Amino acid sequence: MTGTPTSRAVRDLKKLKGLAFDAYGTLYDVHSVIELAEQLFPGQGTALSNAWRLKQLQYTWQRSLMNRYADFWKVTEDGLVFATNSLNLTLDPSKRKQLMDAYHSLKTFPDVPPGLKELSTAGYKLAILSNGAPRMLQDVTKNAGIDQFLPRVISVDEVKIYKPSPRVYQLAAKKLGTAPEATGFVSSNSWDIAGAGSFGLTTFWINRGNQAPDELGFPAHRVVTKLTDLLPLLKAAA
Amino acid sequence: MTGTPTSRAVRDLKKLKGLAFDAYGTLYDVHSVIELAEQLFPGQGTALSNAWRLKQLQYTWQRSLMNRYADFWKVTEDGLVFATNSLNLTLDPSKRKQLMDAYHSLKTFPDVPPGLKELSTAGYKLAILSNGAPRMLQDVTKNAGIDQFLPRVISVDEVKIYKPSPRVYQLAAKKLGTAPEATGFVSSNSWDIAGAGSFGLTTFWINRGNQAPDELGFPAHRVVTKLTDLLPLLKAAA
Repeated sequence: MTGTPTSRAVRDLKKLKGLAFDAYGTLYDVHSVIELAEQLFPGQGTALSNAWRLKQLQYTWQRSLMNRYADFWKVTEDGLVFATNSLNLTLDPSKRKQLMDAYHSLKTFPDVPPGLKELSTAGYKLAILSNGAPRMLQDVTKNAGIDQFLPRVISVDEVKIYKPSPRVYQLAAKKLGTAPEATGFVSSNSWDIAGAGSFGLTTFWINRGNQAPDELGFPAHRVVTKLTDLLPLLKAAA
Repeated sequence: MTGTPTSRAVRDLKKLKGLAFDAYGTLYDVHSVIELAEQLFPGQGTALSNAWRLKQLQYTWQRSLMNRYADFWKVTEDGLVFATNSLNLTLDPSKRKQLMDAYHSLKTFPDVPPGLKELSTAGYKLAILSNGAPRMLQDVTKNAGIDQFLPRVISVDEVKIYKPSPRVYQLAAKKLGTAPEATGFVSSNSWDIAGAGSFGLTTFWINRGNQAPDELGFPAHRVVTKLTDLLPLLKAAA
Protein backbone atom coordinates (compact mmCIF):
# COMPACT_ATOMS: atom_id res chain seq x y z
CA MET A 1 0.00 0.00 0.00
CA THR A 2 2.86 2.32 -0.89
CA GLY A 3 1.83 5.94 -0.77
CA THR A 4 -1.73 5.30 0.35
CA PRO A 5 -3.00 7.95 2.77
CA THR A 6 -3.96 6.22 6.03
CA SER A 7 -5.15 9.25 7.96
CA ARG A 8 -8.40 11.13 7.63
CA ALA A 9 -6.45 14.41 7.60
CA VAL A 10 -5.12 14.87 4.10
CA ARG A 11 -1.71 16.49 4.24
CA ASP A 12 -0.32 18.73 1.62
CA LEU A 13 3.07 17.24 0.81
CA LYS A 14 3.91 20.22 -1.39
CA LYS A 15 4.48 22.30 1.76
CA LEU A 16 7.30 20.11 3.04
CA LYS A 17 10.73 21.74 3.24
CA GLY A 18 12.44 19.58 5.86
CA LEU A 19 12.50 15.92 6.79
CA ALA A 20 13.63 14.47 10.11
CA PHE A 21 14.55 10.80 10.28
CA ASP A 22 14.45 8.45 13.21
CA ALA A 23 17.81 6.64 13.54
CA TYR A 24 17.58 3.26 15.29
CA GLY A 25 15.40 0.83 13.37
CA THR A 26 14.82 3.34 10.55
CA LEU A 27 18.26 4.26 9.20
CA TYR A 28 20.24 1.71 11.23
CA ASP A 29 19.38 -1.91 11.78
CA VAL A 30 19.67 -2.46 15.55
CA HIS A 31 19.60 -6.18 14.90
CA SER A 32 22.92 -5.98 13.07
CA VAL A 33 24.29 -6.85 16.55
CA ILE A 34 22.90 -10.38 16.16
CA GLU A 35 26.01 -11.70 14.43
CA LEU A 36 28.31 -10.56 17.22
CA ALA A 37 25.82 -11.64 19.91
CA GLU A 38 25.67 -15.09 18.32
CA GLN A 39 29.48 -15.34 18.30
CA LEU A 40 29.65 -14.36 21.98
CA PHE A 41 26.63 -16.42 23.08
CA PRO A 42 26.16 -19.26 20.58
CA GLY A 43 22.50 -20.10 19.98
CA GLN A 44 21.31 -16.96 21.81
CA GLY A 45 22.13 -14.16 19.38
CA THR A 46 18.60 -13.43 18.19
CA ALA A 47 17.01 -13.87 21.63
CA LEU A 48 19.57 -11.51 23.15
CA SER A 49 19.13 -8.87 20.44
CA ASN A 50 15.34 -8.95 20.80
CA ALA A 51 15.38 -8.79 24.62
CA TRP A 52 17.98 -6.02 24.54
CA ARG A 53 16.05 -3.81 22.11
CA LEU A 54 12.77 -4.37 23.96
CA LYS A 55 14.21 -3.31 27.31
CA GLN A 56 16.21 -0.44 25.86
CA LEU A 57 12.96 1.10 24.61
CA GLN A 58 10.99 0.28 27.76
CA TYR A 59 13.63 2.02 29.86
CA THR A 60 13.36 5.17 27.73
CA TRP A 61 9.61 5.32 28.39
CA GLN A 62 9.79 4.35 32.03
CA ARG A 63 12.65 6.72 32.90
CA SER A 64 10.86 9.56 31.10
CA LEU A 65 7.71 8.95 33.13
CA MET A 66 9.72 8.65 36.35
CA ASN A 67 11.43 11.98 35.58
CA ARG A 68 14.72 10.10 35.77
CA TYR A 69 16.28 10.75 32.40
CA ALA A 70 19.62 9.07 31.71
CA ASP A 71 21.17 9.25 28.28
CA PHE A 72 20.72 6.55 25.62
CA TRP A 73 24.16 5.07 26.17
CA LYS A 74 23.28 4.35 29.80
CA VAL A 75 19.81 3.08 28.93
CA THR A 76 21.24 0.86 26.19
CA GLU A 77 23.80 -0.60 28.58
CA ASP A 78 21.14 -1.13 31.27
CA GLY A 79 18.99 -2.91 28.68
CA LEU A 80 21.91 -5.17 27.80
CA VAL A 81 22.53 -6.03 31.45
CA PHE A 82 18.87 -6.92 31.96
CA ALA A 83 18.71 -8.91 28.72
CA THR A 84 21.72 -11.06 29.59
CA ASN A 85 20.50 -11.56 33.18
CA SER A 86 17.06 -12.57 31.97
CA LEU A 87 18.60 -15.15 29.61
CA ASN A 88 21.06 -16.39 32.27
CA LEU A 89 24.06 -15.30 30.21
CA THR A 90 27.24 -14.01 31.83
CA LEU A 91 28.18 -10.56 30.57
CA ASP A 92 31.88 -10.19 31.36
CA PRO A 93 33.53 -6.77 30.78
CA SER A 94 34.94 -7.78 27.40
CA LYS A 95 31.61 -9.02 26.02
CA ARG A 96 29.88 -5.96 27.42
CA LYS A 97 32.33 -3.63 25.70
CA GLN A 98 32.14 -5.46 22.37
CA LEU A 99 28.34 -5.41 22.32
CA MET A 100 28.12 -1.77 23.34
CA ASP A 101 30.76 -0.79 20.78
CA ALA A 102 28.65 -2.49 18.13
CA TYR A 103 26.22 0.41 18.52
CA HIS A 104 28.84 2.65 16.88
CA SER A 105 28.91 0.54 13.74
CA LEU A 106 25.33 -0.52 13.12
CA LYS A 107 24.57 -1.22 9.47
CA THR A 108 22.21 0.95 7.46
CA PHE A 109 19.33 -0.71 5.64
CA PRO A 110 20.24 -0.97 1.91
CA ASP A 111 17.63 1.60 0.82
CA VAL A 112 19.00 4.26 3.20
CA PRO A 113 22.08 5.71 1.44
CA PRO A 114 20.37 6.07 -1.99
CA GLY A 115 17.16 7.37 -0.39
CA LEU A 116 18.96 10.06 1.59
CA LYS A 117 21.09 11.04 -1.38
CA GLU A 118 18.07 11.59 -3.63
CA LEU A 119 16.24 13.69 -1.04
CA SER A 120 19.31 15.74 -0.27
CA THR A 121 19.96 16.39 -3.97
CA ALA A 122 16.32 17.39 -4.44
CA GLY A 123 16.89 20.20 -1.92
CA TYR A 124 15.12 18.97 1.21
CA LYS A 125 16.66 19.94 4.54
CA LEU A 126 17.46 16.65 6.28
CA ALA A 127 18.11 15.79 9.91
CA ILE A 128 18.28 12.89 12.31
CA LEU A 129 15.85 13.14 15.25
CA SER A 130 16.72 10.36 17.66
CA ASN A 131 16.73 9.04 21.20
CA GLY A 132 20.47 8.45 20.77
CA ALA A 133 23.07 10.34 22.76
CA PRO A 134 24.85 12.95 20.58
CA ARG A 135 28.17 11.09 20.54
CA MET A 136 26.49 7.78 19.61
CA LEU A 137 24.66 9.43 16.72
CA GLN A 138 27.72 11.25 15.40
CA ASP A 139 29.79 8.06 15.48
CA VAL A 140 27.28 5.71 13.89
CA THR A 141 26.37 8.24 11.19
CA LYS A 142 29.98 8.86 10.29
CA ASN A 143 30.90 5.16 10.35
CA ALA A 144 27.96 4.39 8.07
CA GLY A 145 29.12 7.07 5.62
CA ILE A 146 25.79 8.92 5.55
CA ASP A 147 26.91 12.01 7.50
CA GLN A 148 27.27 13.91 4.20
CA PHE A 149 23.48 13.78 3.74
CA LEU A 150 22.61 14.54 7.36
CA PRO A 151 24.16 17.85 8.41
CA ARG A 152 21.84 18.11 11.43
CA VAL A 153 21.87 15.50 14.16
CA ILE A 154 19.20 16.25 16.75
CA SER A 155 19.21 14.30 19.99
CA VAL A 156 16.56 14.09 22.71
CA ASP A 157 19.44 14.77 25.07
CA GLU A 158 18.73 18.44 24.49
CA VAL A 159 15.32 18.16 26.19
CA LYS A 160 16.12 15.26 28.54
CA ILE A 161 12.99 13.29 27.76
CA TYR A 162 12.47 10.48 25.25
CA LYS A 163 10.10 9.90 22.38
CA PRO A 164 7.12 10.01 22.02
CA SER A 165 7.03 13.20 24.13
CA PRO A 166 5.88 16.19 22.03
CA ARG A 167 8.91 18.10 23.32
CA VAL A 168 11.09 15.84 21.15
CA TYR A 169 9.17 16.35 17.90
CA GLN A 170 9.04 20.07 18.53
CA LEU A 171 12.84 20.04 18.35
CA ALA A 172 12.70 18.84 14.74
CA ALA A 173 10.85 21.89 13.47
CA LYS A 174 12.92 24.21 15.63
CA LYS A 175 16.30 22.84 14.52
CA LEU A 176 15.35 22.48 10.86
CA GLY A 177 13.97 26.01 10.92
CA THR A 178 10.77 24.81 9.28
CA ALA A 179 7.18 25.27 10.47
CA PRO A 180 5.60 22.08 11.88
CA GLU A 181 3.36 21.82 8.80
CA ALA A 182 6.46 22.07 6.57
CA THR A 183 8.27 19.37 8.55
CA GLY A 184 8.04 15.70 7.70
CA PHE A 185 9.01 12.90 10.04
CA VAL A 186 10.17 9.50 8.85
CA SER A 187 10.32 6.42 11.08
CA SER A 188 10.01 2.65 10.96
CA ASN A 189 8.65 2.62 14.50
CA SER A 190 4.88 2.89 14.39
CA TRP A 191 4.61 4.36 17.92
CA ASP A 192 7.17 7.01 16.93
CA ILE A 193 4.99 7.94 13.97
CA ALA A 194 2.03 8.28 16.35
CA GLY A 195 4.03 10.59 18.62
CA ALA A 196 5.13 12.82 15.74
CA GLY A 197 1.62 12.88 14.29
CA SER A 198 0.14 13.73 17.66
CA PHE A 199 2.49 16.73 17.87
CA GLY A 200 1.56 17.85 14.35
CA LEU A 201 4.32 16.75 11.98
CA THR A 202 3.52 15.09 8.64
CA THR A 203 4.45 11.44 9.05
CA PHE A 204 5.91 8.79 6.78
CA TRP A 205 6.01 5.25 8.11
CA ILE A 206 8.73 3.06 6.58
CA ASN A 207 7.10 -0.32 7.04
CA ARG A 208 9.80 -2.63 5.68
CA GLY A 209 8.45 -5.81 7.25
CA ASN A 210 4.70 -5.49 6.70
CA GLN A 211 4.12 -4.91 10.42
CA ALA A 212 0.74 -4.19 11.99
CA PRO A 213 0.35 -0.49 12.88
CA ASP A 214 0.19 0.58 16.51
CA GLU A 215 -3.23 1.51 17.86
CA LEU A 216 -2.42 4.91 19.28
CA GLY A 217 -4.85 7.08 17.37
CA PHE A 218 -2.41 8.83 15.01
CA PRO A 219 -1.80 6.66 11.94
CA ALA A 220 0.88 7.66 9.47
CA HIS A 221 -0.08 10.17 6.77
CA ARG A 222 1.77 7.99 4.27
CA VAL A 223 3.09 4.43 4.43
CA VAL A 224 5.98 3.24 2.25
CA THR A 225 8.26 0.22 2.33
CA LYS A 226 11.62 1.91 1.77
CA LEU A 227 13.36 5.27 1.89
CA THR A 228 13.70 5.39 -1.90
CA ASP A 229 9.89 5.52 -2.13
CA LEU A 230 9.87 8.97 -0.52
CA LEU A 231 11.13 11.21 -3.30
CA PRO A 232 8.75 9.81 -5.96
CA LEU A 233 5.90 10.35 -3.48
CA LEU A 234 6.92 13.94 -2.82
CA LYS A 235 7.42 14.63 -6.52
CA ALA A 236 3.99 13.24 -7.37
CA ALA A 237 2.46 15.72 -4.93
CA ALA A 238 4.43 18.70 -6.24
CA MET B 1 16.39 -14.51 48.71
CA THR B 2 13.18 -13.91 50.65
CA GLY B 3 13.37 -10.84 52.82
CA THR B 4 16.86 -9.84 51.79
CA PRO B 5 17.32 -6.07 51.54
CA THR B 6 18.41 -5.20 48.01
CA SER B 7 18.71 -1.45 48.39
CA ARG B 8 21.46 0.52 50.03
CA ALA B 9 18.85 2.57 51.86
CA VAL B 10 17.72 0.53 54.84
CA ARG B 11 14.03 1.07 55.43
CA ASP B 12 12.36 0.90 58.77
CA LEU B 13 9.48 -1.49 58.24
CA LYS B 14 8.14 -0.71 61.72
CA LYS B 15 6.88 2.63 60.43
CA LEU B 16 4.55 1.10 57.88
CA LYS B 17 0.84 1.70 58.41
CA GLY B 18 -0.52 1.24 54.92
CA LEU B 19 0.17 -1.04 51.98
CA ALA B 20 -0.85 -0.40 48.38
CA PHE B 21 -0.93 -3.33 45.94
CA ASP B 22 -0.52 -3.34 42.22
CA ALA B 23 -3.39 -5.29 40.61
CA TYR B 24 -2.54 -6.79 37.20
CA GLY B 25 0.26 -9.31 37.45
CA THR B 26 0.48 -8.94 41.25
CA LEU B 27 -2.97 -9.84 42.61
CA TYR B 28 -4.47 -11.01 39.31
CA ASP B 29 -2.86 -13.25 36.76
CA VAL B 30 -3.29 -11.47 33.41
CA HIS B 31 -2.35 -14.70 31.71
CA SER B 32 -5.47 -16.38 33.01
CA VAL B 33 -6.88 -15.29 29.63
CA ILE B 34 -4.69 -17.91 27.91
CA GLU B 35 -7.28 -20.67 28.26
CA LEU B 36 -9.99 -18.63 26.54
CA ALA B 37 -7.53 -17.28 23.95
CA GLU B 38 -6.49 -20.84 23.16
CA GLN B 39 -10.13 -21.90 22.73
CA LEU B 40 -10.81 -18.99 20.38
CA PHE B 41 -7.48 -19.23 18.49
CA PRO B 42 -6.18 -22.81 18.81
CA GLY B 43 -2.40 -22.99 19.06
CA GLN B 44 -2.09 -19.20 19.57
CA GLY B 45 -3.33 -18.71 23.15
CA THR B 46 0.02 -18.06 24.79
CA ALA B 47 1.40 -15.97 21.93
CA LEU B 48 -1.75 -13.83 21.93
CA SER B 49 -1.71 -13.35 25.70
CA ASN B 50 1.97 -12.32 25.65
CA ALA B 51 1.61 -9.91 22.72
CA TRP B 52 -1.54 -8.43 24.25
CA ARG B 53 0.03 -7.75 27.66
CA LEU B 54 3.19 -6.32 26.11
CA LYS B 55 1.30 -3.82 23.96
CA GLN B 56 -1.19 -2.96 26.69
CA LEU B 57 1.71 -1.79 28.86
CA GLN B 58 3.57 -0.07 26.02
CA TYR B 59 0.47 1.93 25.19
CA THR B 60 0.17 3.12 28.81
CA TRP B 61 3.73 4.48 28.65
CA GLN B 62 3.50 5.88 25.15
CA ARG B 63 0.12 7.58 25.67
CA SER B 64 1.35 9.08 28.94
CA LEU B 65 4.40 10.56 27.21
CA MET B 66 2.26 11.80 24.31
CA ASN B 67 -0.10 13.51 26.79
CA ARG B 68 -2.88 11.42 25.24
CA TYR B 69 -4.29 9.54 28.20
CA ALA B 70 -7.09 7.09 27.48
CA ASP B 71 -8.38 4.80 30.21
CA PHE B 72 -7.13 1.26 30.74
CA TRP B 73 -10.18 -0.33 29.15
CA LYS B 74 -9.44 1.50 25.90
CA VAL B 75 -5.72 0.78 26.09
CA THR B 76 -6.40 -2.89 26.82
CA GLU B 77 -8.73 -3.16 23.85
CA ASP B 78 -6.23 -1.35 21.60
CA GLY B 79 -3.54 -3.79 22.75
CA LEU B 80 -5.81 -6.71 21.87
CA VAL B 81 -6.49 -5.31 18.40
CA PHE B 82 -2.78 -4.84 17.75
CA ALA B 83 -1.91 -8.28 19.14
CA THR B 84 -4.43 -10.09 16.93
CA ASN B 85 -3.41 -8.04 13.87
CA SER B 86 0.26 -8.79 14.47
CA LEU B 87 -0.49 -12.51 14.68
CA ASN B 88 -2.78 -12.41 11.63
CA LEU B 89 -5.79 -13.50 13.68
CA THR B 90 -9.30 -12.25 12.93
CA LEU B 91 -10.89 -10.59 15.94
CA ASP B 92 -14.62 -10.67 15.28
CA PRO B 93 -16.97 -8.76 17.63
CA SER B 94 -17.84 -11.90 19.61
CA LYS B 95 -14.22 -12.92 20.24
CA ARG B 96 -13.34 -9.35 21.09
CA LYS B 97 -16.12 -9.15 23.65
CA GLN B 98 -15.25 -12.49 25.22
CA LEU B 99 -11.57 -11.63 25.58
CA MET B 100 -12.26 -8.17 26.98
CA ASP B 101 -14.86 -9.57 29.39
CA ALA B 102 -12.20 -11.98 30.65
CA TYR B 103 -10.54 -8.96 32.27
CA HIS B 104 -13.46 -8.83 34.71
CA SER B 105 -12.81 -12.34 35.94
CA LEU B 106 -9.05 -12.73 36.07
CA LYS B 107 -7.89 -15.28 38.61
CA THR B 108 -5.93 -14.29 41.70
CA PHE B 109 -2.62 -16.01 42.36
CA PRO B 110 -3.17 -18.65 45.09
CA ASP B 111 -1.14 -16.76 47.72
CA VAL B 112 -3.24 -13.60 47.31
CA PRO B 113 -6.42 -14.23 49.35
CA PRO B 114 -4.57 -15.65 52.41
CA GLY B 115 -1.88 -12.96 52.19
CA LEU B 116 -4.38 -10.11 52.09
CA LYS B 117 -6.45 -11.64 54.88
CA GLU B 118 -3.47 -11.88 57.23
CA LEU B 119 -2.35 -8.31 56.57
CA SER B 120 -5.87 -6.96 56.96
CA THR B 121 -6.36 -8.85 60.23
CA ALA B 122 -3.02 -7.52 61.50
CA GLY B 123 -4.39 -3.99 61.11
CA TYR B 124 -2.64 -2.65 58.04
CA LYS B 125 -4.59 -0.26 55.84
CA LEU B 126 -4.77 -1.90 52.43
CA ALA B 127 -5.48 -0.52 48.97
CA ILE B 128 -5.18 -1.34 45.31
CA LEU B 129 -3.09 1.17 43.31
CA SER B 130 -3.50 0.29 39.67
CA ASN B 131 -3.47 1.41 36.06
CA GLY B 132 -6.94 -0.16 35.76
CA ALA B 133 -10.05 1.90 35.11
CA PRO B 134 -12.20 2.19 38.26
CA ARG B 135 -15.00 0.01 36.92
CA MET B 136 -12.56 -2.72 35.80
CA LEU B 137 -10.92 -2.78 39.22
CA GLN B 138 -14.20 -2.87 41.13
CA ASP B 139 -15.50 -5.73 38.99
CA VAL B 140 -12.41 -7.94 39.04
CA THR B 141 -11.89 -7.41 42.77
CA LYS B 142 -15.48 -8.29 43.59
CA ASN B 143 -15.54 -11.29 41.26
CA ALA B 144 -12.33 -12.61 42.84
CA GLY B 145 -13.88 -12.28 46.31
CA ILE B 146 -11.07 -10.15 47.74
CA ASP B 147 -13.00 -6.87 47.94
CA GLN B 148 -13.53 -7.46 51.66
CA PHE B 149 -9.78 -6.98 52.26
CA LEU B 150 -9.38 -4.02 49.92
CA PRO B 151 -11.71 -1.21 50.93
CA ARG B 152 -9.75 1.33 48.88
CA VAL B 153 -9.40 0.97 45.14
CA ILE B 154 -7.15 3.71 43.74
CA SER B 155 -6.99 4.15 39.98
CA VAL B 156 -4.56 6.22 37.91
CA ASP B 157 -7.71 7.50 36.21
CA GLU B 158 -7.80 10.13 38.93
CA VAL B 159 -4.56 11.71 37.67
CA LYS B 160 -4.87 10.72 33.99
CA ILE B 161 -1.31 9.45 33.67
CA TYR B 162 0.03 5.91 34.02
CA LYS B 163 2.67 4.26 36.15
CA PRO B 164 5.56 4.81 36.71
CA SER B 165 4.76 8.55 36.97
CA PRO B 166 5.38 9.82 40.52
CA ARG B 167 1.90 11.37 40.43
CA VAL B 168 0.47 7.87 40.62
CA TYR B 169 2.47 6.73 43.65
CA GLN B 170 1.71 9.99 45.41
CA LEU B 171 -1.97 9.01 45.23
CA ALA B 172 -1.29 5.93 47.38
CA ALA B 173 -0.07 7.93 50.38
CA LYS B 174 -2.78 10.54 49.89
CA LYS B 175 -5.66 8.08 49.67
CA LEU B 176 -4.40 5.80 52.45
CA GLY B 177 -3.85 8.86 54.63
CA THR B 178 -0.35 7.68 55.47
CA ALA B 179 2.93 9.56 55.07
CA PRO B 180 5.09 8.31 52.16
CA GLU B 181 7.56 6.75 54.63
CA ALA B 182 4.65 4.91 56.30
CA THR B 183 3.35 3.62 52.98
CA GLY B 184 4.47 0.35 51.48
CA PHE B 185 3.98 -0.62 47.85
CA VAL B 186 3.73 -4.19 46.65
CA SER B 187 4.11 -5.24 43.03
CA SER B 188 5.28 -8.14 40.89
CA ASN B 189 6.33 -5.73 38.15
CA SER B 190 9.94 -4.73 38.69
CA TRP B 191 9.61 -1.43 36.79
CA ASP B 192 6.58 -0.56 38.96
CA ILE B 193 8.73 -1.15 42.05
CA ALA B 194 11.34 1.22 40.59
CA GLY B 195 8.71 3.90 40.03
CA ALA B 196 7.35 3.63 43.57
CA GLY B 197 10.85 3.59 45.04
CA SER B 198 11.84 6.61 42.97
CA PHE B 199 8.86 8.49 44.41
CA GLY B 200 9.77 7.45 47.97
CA LEU B 201 7.52 4.56 48.98
CA THR B 202 8.92 1.46 50.69
CA THR B 203 8.83 -1.29 48.11
CA PHE B 204 8.18 -5.02 48.20
CA TRP B 205 8.78 -6.96 45.01
CA ILE B 206 6.76 -10.18 44.70
CA ASN B 207 9.08 -12.12 42.43
CA ARG B 208 7.09 -15.32 41.91
CA GLY B 209 8.98 -16.50 38.84
CA ASN B 210 12.60 -15.73 39.78
CA GLN B 211 12.76 -12.92 37.22
CA ALA B 212 15.75 -10.66 36.67
CA PRO B 213 15.21 -7.21 38.22
CA ASP B 214 14.86 -4.18 35.96
CA GLU B 215 17.87 -1.88 35.72
CA LEU B 216 16.20 1.40 36.57
CA GLY B 217 18.21 2.46 39.60
CA PHE B 218 15.63 1.84 42.33
CA PRO B 219 15.76 -1.81 43.41
CA ALA B 220 13.13 -3.13 45.78
CA HIS B 221 13.68 -2.62 49.50
CA ARG B 222 12.58 -6.21 50.04
CA VAL B 223 12.08 -9.13 47.67
CA VAL B 224 9.72 -12.01 48.46
CA THR B 225 8.18 -14.78 46.40
CA LYS B 226 4.57 -14.61 47.61
CA LEU B 227 2.11 -12.33 49.40
CA THR B 228 2.04 -14.61 52.44
CA ASP B 229 5.74 -13.78 53.01
CA LEU B 230 4.86 -10.17 53.81
CA LEU B 231 3.31 -10.42 57.28
CA PRO B 232 6.16 -12.55 58.71
CA LEU B 233 8.62 -10.01 57.31
CA LEU B 234 6.77 -7.08 58.84
CA LYS B 235 6.40 -8.90 62.17
CA ALA B 236 10.11 -9.71 62.28
CA ALA B 237 10.85 -5.99 61.94
CA ALA B 238 8.35 -4.94 64.62
